[in-house]
Amino acid sequence: MIEIRGYKDEDWNDLWPILKNVFRKGETYPFSSEITEKESHNVWIVKPKATFIALNENHEIVGTYYIKPNQPGLGSHVCNCGYIVPEISRGRGVGKIMCNHSQEEAKKLGFGSMQFNLVVSTNESAINLWKRLGFQVIGELPDAFQHKKLGYVDALVMYKKLK
Amino acid sequence: MIEIRGYKDEDWNDLWPILKNVFRKGETYPFSSEITEKESHNVWIVKPKATFIALNENHEIVGTYYIKPNQPGLGSHVCNCGYIVPEISRGRGVGKIMCNHSQEEAKKLGFGSMQFNLVVSTNESAINLWKRLGFQVIGELPDAFQHKKLGYVDALVMYKKLK
Repeated sequence: MIEIRGYKDEDWNDLWPILKNVFRKGETYPFSSEITEKESHNVWIVKPKATFIALNENHEIVGTYYIKPNQPGLGSHVCNCGYIVPEISRGRGVGKIMCNHSQEEAKKLGFGSMQFNLVVSTNESAINLWKRLGFQVIGELPDAFQHKKLGYVDALVMYKKLK
Repeated sequence: MIEIRGYKDEDWNDLWPILKNVFRKGETYPFSSEITEKESHNVWIVKPKATFIALNENHEIVGTYYIKPNQPGLGSHVCNCGYIVPEISRGRGVGKIMCNHSQEEAKKLGFGSMQFNLVVSTNESAINLWKRLGFQVIGELPDAFQHKKLGYVDALVMYKKLK
């Protein structure tokens, strides 16, 4: 059983190692792989409109996502989300549960669409999941992501209307 | 003759009415059409890596553009630019001159590509210009822009490799 709830300040000490591990790898998120704890807190907790935590039956964090407007004012009806599942918790459908949850939260917050700006083309499991959940590939940005292991790789823009 | 040079603080009083006029219309930029002077200064001057001013032979401002990384760290080799030509100065090729100038500046700053994230589909003159200057349409985001007169309209993602 996966429970999803809003982020609380006391989650940070457990959450930061999970974010850190993914950011340091430099394979899926554009943040510098040397991003500091403070900057990470800023991009994942402070800047977004909301951040959520997925917990397993032992109340351990098995995922997290944020939601925020993708653009200001006249583009602010489209939201952007970022999702992270720690390596140890992958393959159990947590990403799918979080993405479905995020779409419902997005609608509650008044968003009409969801956009992913930079889905790394080598992140096939994510791309396939987003496709299965109804996201369309708008297009592919050539060499738009500097993968820490592979160098420049393409990135996809993906989009889904929520209403 | 159009001269392009870096923005200076003393330009603001002449520049702000030009930005204001375009932002208030709500037809091309996503900023709230009620954006304040301070916020406008922030998005056009403070946040970008560089801002430029195009002047005519009478030293009047006939255009402006900014350049900034489109993403942090591992996406920061792709830049984003925004261009504005006041209505009275349109049709004289200022946009083209600025876009060519911006590509050279982008290369000097070490950027490898340029991306436009939200080119409003009804802004045909801009789209045609970017296409003529070698930008490709990556894809079209359905209803991603809330046009002040027309309501929800599509927006294009456009991209050009600079090297």
